[in-house]
Amino acid sequence: MSSHKIEAIARATGLTLLGDGSLTVRGAAEPANAEADELALAMSPSYADALRGSRARTAVVWGEIDLQEFGLEAALVASRPRIALAGITAAFQHQSDIAPGIHPSAIVEQGAEIGEGAAIGAFAVIGAGARLGPGAVVGAHATIGSEAVIGDKALLHAGVRIGARCKIGARFIAQPNAVIGADGFSFEPSDPASSARAAGHDTASDSNADTRKWLRIHSLAGVEIGDDVEIGSGACIDRGTIAPTRIGSGTKIDNLVQIGHNVQVGRDCLLCAQVGIAGSTVIGDRAVIGGKVGIPDHVKIGADVVIAAGSLVAGNLAGQAIYMGIPAVPRMQALRQMNMVRRLPELATELARIREKLGL
Amino acid sequence: MSSHKIEAIARATGLTLLGDGSLTVRGAAEPANAEADELALAMSPSYADALRGSRARTAVVWGEIDLQEFGLEAALVASRPRIALAGITAAFQHQSDIAPGIHPSAIVEQGAEIGEGAAIGAFAVIGAGARLGPGAVVGAHATIGSEAVIGDKALLHAGVRIGARCKIGARFIAQPNAVIGADGFSFEPSDPASSARAAGHDTASDSNADTRKWLRIHSLAGVEIGDDVEIGSGACIDRGTIAPTRIGSGTKIDNLVQIGHNVQVGRDCLLCAQVGIAGSTVIGDRAVIGGKVGIPDHVKIGADVVIAAGSLVAGNLAGQAIYMGIPAVPRMQALRQMNMVRRLPELATELARIREKLGL
Amino acid sequence: MSSHKIEAIARATGLTLLGDGSLTVRGAAEPANAEADELALAMSPSYADALRGSRARTAVVWGEIDLQEFGLEAALVASRPRIALAGITAAFQHQSDIAPGIHPSAIVEQGAEIGEGAAIGAFAVIGAGARLGPGAVVGAHATIGSEAVIGDKALLHAGVRIGARCKIGARFIAQPNAVIGADGFSFEPSDPASSARAAGHDTASDSNADTRKWLRIHSLAGVEIGDDVEIGSGACIDRGTIAPTRIGSGTKIDNLVQIGHNVQVGRDCLLCAQVGIAGSTVIGDRAVIGGKVGIPDHVKIGADVVIAAGSLVAGNLAGQAIYMGIPAVPRMQALRQMNMVRRLPELATELARIREKLGL
Repeated sequence: MSSHKIEAIARATGLTLLGDGSLTVRGAAEPANAEADELALAMSPSYADALRGSRARTAVVWGEIDLQEFGLEAALVASRPRIALAGITAAFQHQSDIAPGIHPSAIVEQGAEIGEGAAIGAFAVIGAGARLGPGAVVGAHATIGSEAVIGDKALLHAGVRIGARCKIGARFIAQPNAVIGADGFSFEPSDPASSARAAGHDTASDSNADTRKWLRIHSLAGVEIGDDVEIGSGACIDRGTIAPTRIGSGTKIDNLVQIGHNVQVGRDCLLCAQVGIAGSTVIGDRAVIGGKVGIPDHVKIGADVVIAAGSLVAGNLAGQAIYMGIPAVPRMQALRQMNMVRRLPELATELARIREKLGL
Repeated sequence: MSSHKIEAIARATGLTLLGDGSLTVRGAAEPANAEADELALAMSPSYADALRGSRARTAVVWGEIDLQEFGLEAALVASRPRIALAGITAAFQHQSDIAPGIHPSAIVEQGAEIGEGAAIGAFAVIGAGARLGPGAVVGAHATIGSEAVIGDKALLHAGVRIGARCKIGARFIAQPNAVIGADGFSFEPSDPASSARAAGHDTASDSNADTRKWLRIHSLAGVEIGDDVEIGSGACIDRGTIAPTRIGSGTKIDNLVQIGHNVQVGRDCLLCAQVGIAGSTVIGDRAVIGGKVGIPDHVKIGADVVIAAGSLVAGNLAGQAIYMGIPAVPRMQALRQMNMVRRLPELATELARIREKLGL
Repeated sequence: MSSHKIEAIARATGLTLLGDGSLTVRGAAEPANAEADELALAMSPSYADALRGSRARTAVVWGEIDLQEFGLEAALVASRPRIALAGITAAFQHQSDIAPGIHPSAIVEQGAEIGEGAAIGAFAVIGAGARLGPGAVVGAHATIGSEAVIGDKALLHAGVRIGARCKIGARFIAQPNAVIGADGFSFEPSDPASSARAAGHDTASDSNADTRKWLRIHSLAGVEIGDDVEIGSGACIDRGTIAPTRIGSGTKIDNLVQIGHNVQVGRDCLLCAQVGIAGSTVIGDRAVIGGKVGIPDHVKIGADVVIAAGSLVAGNLAGQAIYMGIPAVPRMQALRQMNMVRRLPELATELARIREKLGL
C-alpha cells in the first residue's frame, strides 16, 4: 500500500472532506482494527460505536458527522458506500509483483512484440508473433500463444493461458490459472442412431452403440474479448469453431465460469462464479447472471436480464426481466411455485379431508 | 491453417464433389465472412441467401445445388452436416505451437523416455522415469510426474498436470491446466459419533464435536486412462485409494469436470462441463452426461444413459434410458412433475373452490 | 511405496496383530489383486471369498478370523475400517517427487526465507520477502507471491498459486493448480438505478442501462488459513476487501470449490467438490457441505451443519441440523416435499375425480 493525503483521496474519489485534509494515511481498515494512521471504513451508522472506540484519526463515514464526537480529525462522507469503497480501494491497492521489463527467465519467441513499459514475469512464455500492448503485465508462468493480441495495460496473473490467435482488448484482467482459448467441446457420434439418441430422440434399438466413436469437430477460430473485461481464476472461455467466441467490453467473469465455443456474451455483463454457458448461446448486454447458473447451448438471453443464483435456464429468455428457478421462469412465478411446493403437505391434507367428506 | 485442393478435402471427408476439384482453399468460414479462397460452410438451406452473397467460390452445401445459381465453382455435399464439419475442421486445424524436439528450457529428469518425434515445450518438466510415446506433444509449463506413462501422439496443452505413476493411452488430448492424478478427497472423522453425523445418521449428542479431527486416507493408486480420451481445461481426475481411478477409451470430458477417487468411467462417454462425480461411482459405457450434472459417491450408472444437464442423481440408474431432474428420474416422469409444479397454483384454486362448495 | 514389518504397521495404526508380525510387506492392495508380499485390504466380511483366493500372506481383516482358514500368516484387525485405511495408506503413501533443497531452475526472490529442509521444485517462483516454513515442499511451476507466509511441512503441488501477503499455517496441502489469493469479484454499477436492479429491486425504467460501467472494488486484504488445511485442484479462495478471507484450522476443501472474498470458514469443516460460497458469508465450525452446494453472499451458516450435495442455500441456517434441497430446508421437510412432488400426478387425478363427483 502507499500513503496518501486525505485531501488527495477526496479529490480522487469525489467524496466530501470534513476536517483536516492534510493528514496522511497509509491504508484502510475496519474501525475496530484501524491503526492511527489508517483510514477507518465506517460507511454505515452501524459502525458508529466501533468508530468511537477506534484508534483511527480519519475515517470514511455515512454522513455529515461531528468529528469531535467520534474523536476524528478528518473524514470523507460517502453517500453511496460501495461507490466510495471502489474509490478508496483503488487508492490503496497493491502494486503488481512483476517488475517492468522482461524477466531474464521469460521466453519471448520470434516476432513477438512487447509494448513499452510492459512487465513480463519469471518463466512467462510469449509465443511467436504475439503482440502485447504498452504497460501490460504478464505474471509468472503465464503462457501466451502464438499470434495472440493483448491490449494496453492488460494484467495477466500467474499461470494464465491465452491460446494462439486470441484477441483481447485493453485493461484486461485475468486472475491466476484462467484459460482463454482452449478447444471447444464439440463431438459428433459417427453413427446416426447415436446422434439421435444423444439428442434425446430415441433410446431403443441402438444397434451401433457398441461401435460408436465420437468424431471431433476442431476449433478453427479463436476468442475475441473487448476492453475492460475481467476473468476469474480457473475460468475457461473456449475458442469458436468457425467464427470466434466473443466477450463484449466491460463484462466481468468470476472464478470457475465455463463459456463454451461460439458463445457470444454482450457488453457490461456480470457472470458470477461457477456459471456455465454451453456452446453457441448468445447473452445480451448488461446481463447479471448469479453463481452456478447453467445455460444450455444455442439459446438467446435478452439484454438487461437478471438470473438468480443456482437457476437452470431451459430455453430463450426475453430481456429486461428477472428469472429464477429450475427451470428458470420469471421471478414472481418462481416464488409462487416455491411457495406452493412448500404448502404441498397442507394441500394433501385438505384433499384427504375432502375425500373423506365425500366418501371417496 | 494450411491450403488444400477441394478434391483432396472430398477424398479425406468422403463428401461428394460438385464442379472443379482442382481449386485450392486456405480455410473455412461462414458464408457471409468467407473470402474468395475460403470454403464457405453452408450445410443447411438457411444459408442459401448468405451463400448467394458470399465472396467464396467454393462451399460445403446441404444438397445437390446448382453451382451457377450460387456463383460457385465447386462444392462439397454434406448429407450429415456435423459429420462434414468434423472432417472439414480436421483438414484446416492449426498445428501445435510446440516444435518437435525438447525445448532447451525444458527439464527431462533421470530415466525419462521421450518417444521419437515428440515435442516438449518451454519449461515443461518430465519427471524421473516417465515415458512419453512417439509423436507426443507437451505444452509449455506442463508437469508430468515421475514414472507416468503417456501414449503415442498425446497432446498436453500448457499447464497440464499429470501426477506420478498415472497411465494414459494414445492420442490423449488435455486442454490447458487440466489436472490428472491429484489426491482423492477422502477423510474420516477420528471419533465415531461424527462419522455417523457426517453420514447424516445422527445430529444429536455429538459430544466429541469440538475435538474432531479429519483423518486423511491417502491415495496410493493412480489414474488409468484409455486411448482417444480428451479432458477439458481445469478438469480434475483424482487418483484412486488402493486401485486406480479409470477412464475408458474414447471418453470425452469437458472443462471443469470433477471426477473423484476410485471412479470408473466406461468407454465412449461424454461428460459435459462442470459435471461432478463423487468417489467410487461407476459409469457405464457410452453415457452422455449433460453439463453441471452431479452424481453421488458409490452409485452405479448403467450403459447408454443420457442424463439431462443440471440433473442431480440420487442413486443407481439403470442403463439405456434418459434421466432428468432433481433428483434425476426417467425423463417422462420428470417432465410430468415439472408440468404439475407449474400447474400447482391452479390446483390450489380448484381445491379452494371445492372447499367452498363443501363448506369446509 | 516403502516396505514395512506387519508389527510396525500394527504399532503405527493401533490395530490388533494376529500371527507373525515379523513379515514384511511392500504395499497394500485389494485381496483379488494383492501379491504375496502385499497387504490385502479385507475390512469387511464381503471380502471373505476374495481373501481366501488371494495370493497375499497378510491382510487387514474385519475381525478375529482364523488365519489358517484364509491361508494367511498374519493379519491386522480393523474394528473401524476407514480409520484403519487412514493408517494403512499413511504407512504406504508415496514420497514427494521434489528433492530437498532448491532446484537450480527455481527462482527465490530477494528477502525470501526458506525453512530448513524445505524442497523447492523446478521453475517454482518464491516472491520477495516470502517465508516458507521448515520441511515445506513446493512443487514444480508453483508461484508464491511476495511476503506470503507458509507454515512448516506445507505441501504445494505443481502449479499452485499463492497470492502476495497470504498467510497459511502448518501442514497445509494444496493440490495442483489451486489458487489462493486471487482478487475478489466485487463490482458496483456506476449508476444507482442499475445498482438497485442488480439487487433485484427494480426492473423498470433503467434509463442509464446503456451507459452502465462496473466500478471495481479492489481487494486490499489477503487470505489467512489455519493449520492442517487442505485445498483441492483448481479450487479458488479469493482475498478479502479490507479484512482477510479466513479458513479455520483442520478444514478440508475439495477440487474446484469457490470461496469468495471476505468469507469466513470455521475449523474442521469439509467442503466437497464444486461447492461455491459467495462473498462475506460465515460458515461455522465442523460444517460438512456436500458437492455442488451453493451458498449466497452475506449469510451465516451455523456450526455442525450438514448440507446435502446439490442443495442451494437461500439464507441463514441454524447450526446442528441437516439441510437439503433447493432452497435448502431441514432434511425431513425436504424429503416430505420431494415425496409430495412425486405424488403430484396422483393428487391431480384425485382432484379431478372430486370435481367430477361435485359436478364442478
